[in-house]
Amino acid sequence: MAPSDKTRVLTGITTTGTPHLGNYVGAIKPAIAASQDPSVQSYYFLADLHALIKCPDPRRVQESRLEIAATWLALGLDTDNAIFYRQSDVPEIPELTWMLSCVCAKGLMNRAHAYKAAVAENEAAGNQDPDKGITMGLFGYPVLMAADILMFNAHKVPVGRDQIQHIEMARDIGGRFNHLYKGQYFTQPEAVVDEQVEVLGGLDGRKMSKSYDNTIPLFASEKKLQKLVRKIKTNSLEPGEPKDPASCTLFQIFSAFATADETKAMRGEYANGIGWGEAKNRVFELLNEQLREPRERYQGLMEDPGHIEQVLLQGAERARAEAAPFMDRLRQAAGLGRFV
Amino acid sequence: MAPSDKTRVLTGITTTGTPHLGNYVGAIKPAIAASQDPSVQSYYFLADLHALIKCPDPRRVQESRLEIAATWLALGLDTDNAIFYRQSDVPEIPELTWMLSCVCAKGLMNRAHAYKAAVAENEAAGNQDPDKGITMGLFGYPVLMAADILMFNAHKVPVGRDQIQHIEMARDIGGRFNHLYKGQYFTQPEAVVDEQVEVLGGLDGRKMSKSYDNTIPLFASEKKLQKLVRKIKTNSLEPGEPKDPASCTLFQIFSAFATADETKAMRGEYANGIGWGEAKNRVFELLNEQLREPRERYQGLMEDPGHIEQVLLQGAERARAEAAPFMDRLRQAAGLGRFV
Repeated sequence: MAPSDKTRVLTGITTTGTPHLGNYVGAIKPAIAASQDPSVQSYYFLADLHALIKCPDPRRVQESRLEIAATWLALGLDTDNAIFYRQSDVPEIPELTWMLSCVCAKGLMNRAHAYKAAVAENEAAGNQDPDKGITMGLFGYPVLMAADILMFNAHKVPVGRDQIQHIEMARDIGGRFNHLYKGQYFTQPEAVVDEQVEVLGGLDGRKMSKSYDNTIPLFASEKKLQKLVRKIKTNSLEPGEPKDPASCTLFQIFSAFATADETKAMRGEYANGIGWGEAKNRVFELLNEQLREPRERYQGLMEDPGHIEQVLLQGAERARAEAAPFMDRLRQAAGLGRFV
Repeated sequence: MAPSDKTRVLTGITTTGTPHLGNYVGAIKPAIAASQDPSVQSYYFLADLHALIKCPDPRRVQESRLEIAATWLALGLDTDNAIFYRQSDVPEIPELTWMLSCVCAKGLMNRAHAYKAAVAENEAAGNQDPDKGITMGLFGYPVLMAADILMFNAHKVPVGRDQIQHIEMARDIGGRFNHLYKGQYFTQPEAVVDEQVEVLGGLDGRKMSKSYDNTIPLFASEKKLQKLVRKIKTNSLEPGEPKDPASCTLFQIFSAFATADETKAMRGEYANGIGWGEAKNRVFELLNEQLREPRERYQGLMEDPGHIEQVLLQGAERARAEAAPFMDRLRQAAGLGRFV
């Protein structure tokens, strides 16, 4: 298929955390599968400029970038097909951000969910200044996101429900630029919301999330993985008593990794009153078996940051091979072209 | 003097208009004189990213960039000493703008004069939405200005009174970055307000300004210059009646270009009742005599945009030779450095 006929799908990964089982099941695994589709041109990027909004800890940002890159590579992201890059390696993105700022109504940002939530929090806390603690980065990041998407004229952007608004904003901003500068510069991106997306429970039964501090790192060592699986909250039913898989985080994690047959068999064990200790062993074994190989690759990659650097720089080169000439065209459109 | 000991002075020129006599007397002439000071490292840049905020007309922006560059070169800007570049040729500037956005309180921008004036205008017009017609570019441009200044760690920024706030904001933003990332990355810039700055009157007697449509283009043709000088508003006193130089735009323009002796002589002519037609001839002759040579150089430059392009690209190269390694350092500071 000719590159220009491919559907362009763009996914950003914010680099503030360490990938955990929940990220893997809900986002990474389906994304890596999608990267292998030859009819799709995928763009995956480490959204490290976005990371600065929420994380002023440089060590954390740096570690997270490395861990996330190593994770995706260890899990088999096809970097020949997909374009995999760091946002901060593509200077055309902040350039475009500024150009889009000049066509983006401030009112649009006033209505952004993340900003409104921050204001509501200030108001609830009785702060006199509704903008207390809110930076221009937090306020304006939907413009950066629009630049991320419009830079590559992505057709589709897989997102969670809470992100749909950002894609609508990107459409709005891109449309205004097209209108103002009289040309079809930008494609209208579409949000793709996977309703089937699996939300994994964490150690305490709530959604597995860095903010709840209840995660199981995807590539924890074997020992650590075992320890964490043992910590998953269960009820107080004794061995021999039948257990309900539907309300059980442990079962949910198991089935996210198991085949249909294995899940069916485990369901039987629950009915037969498997003890929690035994069930946890089974979960650990299943996870460990599936994660052993990628974990080894991950550890190898983490010990060779030079290699990861090279892969990402190659990705940035491919991204810039598209972004740079496109920015030239956009500059020209706005009156910022070369004199000759 | 070693480059590192020099005082760094930075001046931006917004590229939305055609340079007129008022720009020349109030800004260009003193700036060019300053560029020749060997103890100073001057940075002059065409603020074309700023131009996008107010001017969505690409042809106007493009023309203005060329005219302004040709004007400064025709008037003898010393581009061996001064660094003369287009803002849009230095991608590190929008990159830095984003990084600074993440440390800049939104509340700071809420209090910016230009934004507040736009809101006040909406309120006066009875608009329900106080942000009507306000873009993110207009709202956030003090952050871009901070990046312009901090990128080169300018010590001094010559500005008008209305711009002092922007320099204070740049100090604030740079200081926050230094604090957050624990280092002396940015110098605190100082506003330099020239209280002596000459504000020239225009055709109608109000301040000469593009927004009043009362300007005399600096390099109008001889014929056009004569025509415009004849249009300068005077009172209805007849030849032979003594005239007051103090309240006379014509006299002000004359004295801005004349020597002290010439001015003194003209003052005598006013007292002796010189006719307006004759006074206008004298003004035209003085201007024409002084502008003839630079006008010729200007016209030559305008016919050779390739040369101007080359001069600006060389300037951008010098600017980036400073900006690029500095941005590397800043990226590193924020956790966006290379992995090896």
